[in-house]
Amino acid sequence: MSIIVLGTVALDTVKTPYGARRRMLGGSAVHFAMAARLFTGVNLVAIVGRDFPRRHIAFLRQKGINLTSLIRSAGKTFQWQGEYQGDLNTALTLSTELGVLADFKPAVSREQRSIRHIFLANIDPDIQRHLLSCMRSPQLVALDSMNYWIKNKRPALVRLLKKVDIYVANDQEARDLSGEHNLVKAAQKLRRLGARMVLIKKGEHGVLFSGAGSIFSLPAYPTARVVDPTGAGDTFAGGFMGYLTKVKKINHASLKKALAFGTVAASFNIEGFGIKRTANLRQQDLEKRLGGFRKLVLF
Amino acid sequence: MSIIVLGTVALDTVKTPYGARRRMLGGSAVHFAMAARLFTGVNLVAIVGRDFPRRHIAFLRQKGINLTSLIRSAGKTFQWQGEYQGDLNTALTLSTELGVLADFKPAVSREQRSIRHIFLANIDPDIQRHLLSCMRSPQLVALDSMNYWIKNKRPALVRLLKKVDIYVANDQEARDLSGEHNLVKAAQKLRRLGARMVLIKKGEHGVLFSGAGSIFSLPAYPTARVVDPTGAGDTFAGGFMGYLTKVKKINHASLKKALAFGTVAASFNIEGFGIKRTANLRQQDLEKRLGGFRKLVLF
Repeated sequence: MSIIVLGTVALDTVKTPYGARRRMLGGSAVHFAMAARLFTGVNLVAIVGRDFPRRHIAFLRQKGINLTSLIRSAGKTFQWQGEYQGDLNTALTLSTELGVLADFKPAVSREQRSIRHIFLANIDPDIQRHLLSCMRSPQLVALDSMNYWIKNKRPALVRLLKKVDIYVANDQEARDLSGEHNLVKAAQKLRRLGARMVLIKKGEHGVLFSGAGSIFSLPAYPTARVVDPTGAGDTFAGGFMGYLTKVKKINHASLKKALAFGTVAASFNIEGFGIKRTANLRQQDLEKRLGGFRKLVLF
Repeated sequence: MSIIVLGTVALDTVKTPYGARRRMLGGSAVHFAMAARLFTGVNLVAIVGRDFPRRHIAFLRQKGINLTSLIRSAGKTFQWQGEYQGDLNTALTLSTELGVLADFKPAVSREQRSIRHIFLANIDPDIQRHLLSCMRSPQLVALDSMNYWIKNKRPALVRLLKKVDIYVANDQEARDLSGEHNLVKAAQKLRRLGARMVLIKKGEHGVLFSGAGSIFSLPAYPTARVVDPTGAGDTFAGGFMGYLTKVKKINHASLKKALAFGTVAASFNIEGFGIKRTANLRQQDLEKRLGGFRKLVLF
């Protein structure tokens, strides 16, 4: 089994109270891949520019990521520059340079089209729909988005909701798209809009999951060591989807364990800049922290 | 075993998107008592005015609350008037009339002085300290407060922290008193200030507990039925302290189960105006929802 992820590969410049880093390897697809690879083969569908350092390509390949559908195109790699202050809960975007992302049209190799587990990370919903239309027999499709698309491409996004199994959103996005403040109601509304299941990421407050006839909720893994939260949501999704791809079955037990793996994966991500902590993570690190996490919430 | 609670008995006038109620029986000590009584005998230390309806006295007595130390004094009962809008997460205080509370000096009967479990609900820290000084052999003391005292009586509050076992705060209060935004750090700081254990209530996001060598965290019980959140924090404290008073032992297992009972008790509170839902609650209702809650978080 393997999973295919459509998203961004970026060069991130980040400043937090703990320091600053320039042009780190980042992007939704990369953060997702760092966690998902611990469970399953990961196929990356993304675009980079000619400026993209070859060592990053080598690194991703060395981590076992399938780069067949990573396009390298004339132009500049997508760049994001952001800053976190005080609580590190909210990123202040200083600049976004789309570069080659502006004309991205994903191409998926013939073999990859039969992959059944699909994660559509945050990117233009039209590109997400196009990728999905390339896939021959989707079995589990999850979709992430962001406020920009909720505001500017709502109809396209809502159409897409009907085609996905799991809509993944942070709390603000869930509220914006549903028009409901109470997150339990927001999840219900989003399911009425078409998503079979809804996963709401609440950052330091954990996660709420609605679907498969149930609601699940988990707190975040409590940590005082928040260095850089960039990519935590995608890392969560990587752990969550990676685990589900590995076990294949979708039921209450597997969904809850997937949420727990997502939680734990994200908790590593925030402990270092960019992918510093997740790049060298091993499955046993996840397992160990999962055990500790279970003790925190078991009563 | 029994517990003594110092706090307010109030007449609450509340407006939420679900309706409005005038001069309902409320106050921190009452909300606390409604949950704690399901586990243990509750002794109430508070003051009301001559206007306090006799039917409320009869009601509390009928619920088994010991009213020996409830003072009925010339003047008006403490009144709070508030409104919740939209998300029902934040109360907008429209008016507060202290009435007899302004000159409250708690008196505890001779027999009650030997009670070992003590909850100091939100009230002037000087009154809390006075009550504590009356008690002969405190074994488990928990303290709640609010932003007003953190701002205006910080030294008194910090002195009191050193004398309590558990400091109970909502997230904003924990941040304000500690000066730390990250709640894990805030809890550490509050423990350095003197509290042996710290319980941070995060409303719809659940609870974080730090102490006894561990951190525990639980999400809230997910519900779409939020009618009136007034008193949810005190109801939480009532379930939490009530359970600990009943089982006597303070260890990881009992603390976690107490947090779960607090969570579940609070989830009933918010489903109706004032104490509508908790007034007729039975222990088996709590137990049943606890079972459902366990399934939500178990992985």
